[in-house]
Amino acid sequence: MEITITKTKVLKPKPDDSKLGFGSIFTDHMLNVDYEPEKGWHNPRIEPYAPFEMDPATMVLHYGQAVFEGLKAYRTASGSVQLFRAKDNFTRLNQSSRSLCIPEIDEAFLMDSLKQLLEIEKDWIPKAPGTSLYVRPTIIATDPYLGVRASNTYRYFVILSPVGAYYAAGFNPVKIWVTKSHVRAVRGGVGEAKTPANYAASLYAGEQATKSGYAQVLWLDGVEQKYIEEVGSMNIFFVIDDEITTPMLNGSILPGITRNSVLALAKHWGMKVSERKITIDEVMQAHESGKLQEIFGSGTAAVISPVGEMKYGDKVITVSDGKVGPIANKLFKTIQDIQYGKAEDPMSWIETV
Amino acid sequence: MEITITKTKVLKPKPDDSKLGFGSIFTDHMLNVDYEPEKGWHNPRIEPYAPFEMDPATMVLHYGQAVFEGLKAYRTASGSVQLFRAKDNFTRLNQSSRSLCIPEIDEAFLMDSLKQLLEIEKDWIPKAPGTSLYVRPTIIATDPYLGVRASNTYRYFVILSPVGAYYAAGFNPVKIWVTKSHVRAVRGGVGEAKTPANYAASLYAGEQATKSGYAQVLWLDGVEQKYIEEVGSMNIFFVIDDEITTPMLNGSILPGITRNSVLALAKHWGMKVSERKITIDEVMQAHESGKLQEIFGSGTAAVISPVGEMKYGDKVITVSDGKVGPIANKLFKTIQDIQYGKAEDPMSWIETV
Repeated sequence: MEITITKTKVLKPKPDDSKLGFGSIFTDHMLNVDYEPEKGWHNPRIEPYAPFEMDPATMVLHYGQAVFEGLKAYRTASGSVQLFRAKDNFTRLNQSSRSLCIPEIDEAFLMDSLKQLLEIEKDWIPKAPGTSLYVRPTIIATDPYLGVRASNTYRYFVILSPVGAYYAAGFNPVKIWVTKSHVRAVRGGVGEAKTPANYAASLYAGEQATKSGYAQVLWLDGVEQKYIEEVGSMNIFFVIDDEITTPMLNGSILPGITRNSVLALAKHWGMKVSERKITIDEVMQAHESGKLQEIFGSGTAAVISPVGEMKYGDKVITVSDGKVGPIANKLFKTIQDIQYGKAEDPMSWIETV
Repeated sequence: MEITITKTKVLKPKPDDSKLGFGSIFTDHMLNVDYEPEKGWHNPRIEPYAPFEMDPATMVLHYGQAVFEGLKAYRTASGSVQLFRAKDNFTRLNQSSRSLCIPEIDEAFLMDSLKQLLEIEKDWIPKAPGTSLYVRPTIIATDPYLGVRASNTYRYFVILSPVGAYYAAGFNPVKIWVTKSHVRAVRGGVGEAKTPANYAASLYAGEQATKSGYAQVLWLDGVEQKYIEEVGSMNIFFVIDDEITTPMLNGSILPGITRNSVLALAKHWGMKVSERKITIDEVMQAHESGKLQEIFGSGTAAVISPVGEMKYGDKVITVSDGKVGPIANKLFKTIQDIQYGKAEDPMSWIETV
């Protein structure tokens, strides 16, 4: 598909790298592609970032049929631009689409169109350490119709947002809270898809955690409420007795790309690694017996989010003496160095733009 | 709050009553109300039905923070207009909002503003038997922001759609399919809220059912996958050994207003009624022993949807000889007669517009 390009007449002022937050500033242009049953995905166009004209009956507003991705474009010291595992994001976008009855999009087109958009917006990629350009590919159901069924029409769009360093205040651990009253997802549901439903279901417990002074919710499985699933909107890892372990993918856990990167690097380093069922009781017992060395989350926004404290019921445990553990630290530094082109890329994760 | 009214200059042509479907035609005007933390709900206005100008980063598109309701306005034989249990819809809207971290709205205002909108749009309420004006109150999160948290700003809107008789082809039973591979909701999740997430999670199994020739999916509980929860986007009832029974509300089942009406009427008639846990095995055994008399769904769109056939695993059972059972029939006729002002309203369910 040939992409039509319409450039904006007036460029927005670019923000100061040192004042960037997350996800509230958007660049001058965006990518839009439409889907209709007769035409398939068609009319790809890069055009000025602008509001959608959206009928109030548009299905995504009522029935949440949508999927999205999140990845980042990084500026290297030499000024070049690179993506981290973008192919995997596009593969996962199509996986999510299948779960939500949304037509798939050719992955080579997804990659090529993103590169074209980034080429036009490259001046928006910030330069300060730890900053990047966040990329949000999204598909929404667009039929103006109130019957409950999959939509016939869709919009694929990509918006870009320059974002600050996640750890602007330093690479510090967070406090997390294990919920037994709320559940994010269950097997047989849409938990492994990157779809709005999972985020909507996480809001209430997230607010409760915040009010109690905890940064994130640790989710247990929806069936027995004893197996660990995710933390906030990240995957989670435990270092127990020198083994790095994370909950195995079971249909209700998001197959995180950073999660996969952590597993691959740890194996590459010759560490003992496992993906398996982990109960919250096992973690608490490992702490009591002194075998719980580290806990950390993994995700695109934070890369690695070390956990210094965890509350479960009435018990509050301190992890890694409330500091960043050595494995979390090594993973964070290594992945970030690969992303910014400062270190070798042994797994061929980098996609040059 | 005083509602500002701006009328459209050009009225749309009204559709022929005999050709109405569901949820694809909308009236000339809609209600919009905005929320900001400093102002609360403010600027209520009835204005021409028009597309929203929606930033591509609007939170509802990414994280599904939204709630809605569905109810109908009916035209009586005398030409007057009435709503059925609208207060209960507005109470439930606020219940759903609490689950989704959305600020509540004064229920008296919700009712009053709907009545004002209906007064302006009353010529859109169709006259043919079984037709009505479907009312869709909706709240969407409107912050243009990609961080995962509850939005700070919201839009409440009401759109109206003239809809045809649900049983235009006759009051006939449907075939339903029990899924063991898909789950709609689980306790601790958002299953009891009327929110897009639950509908998104139902699409895949719904498509599978349709492809196999079944009209609806029968959902089992997310924990043990043996207790019956809902059918499609309706509640479900069984008549077993002269008892009318429906799954008890457990946090993952929508507290249907038609469900509540069925229970209230059946009790009023002196029938044996229960809300309890019901396993799919119990239903299959009741069928084998000849005690399963009827199965039917309940919801705003259909009122009552009789089930003539149910497939569970390899077993297909015929219910009520594949016909409409006497209890489903009596409930359908009674509720519909109350809705259209043809019968007494012993429970004071009618709200006159």
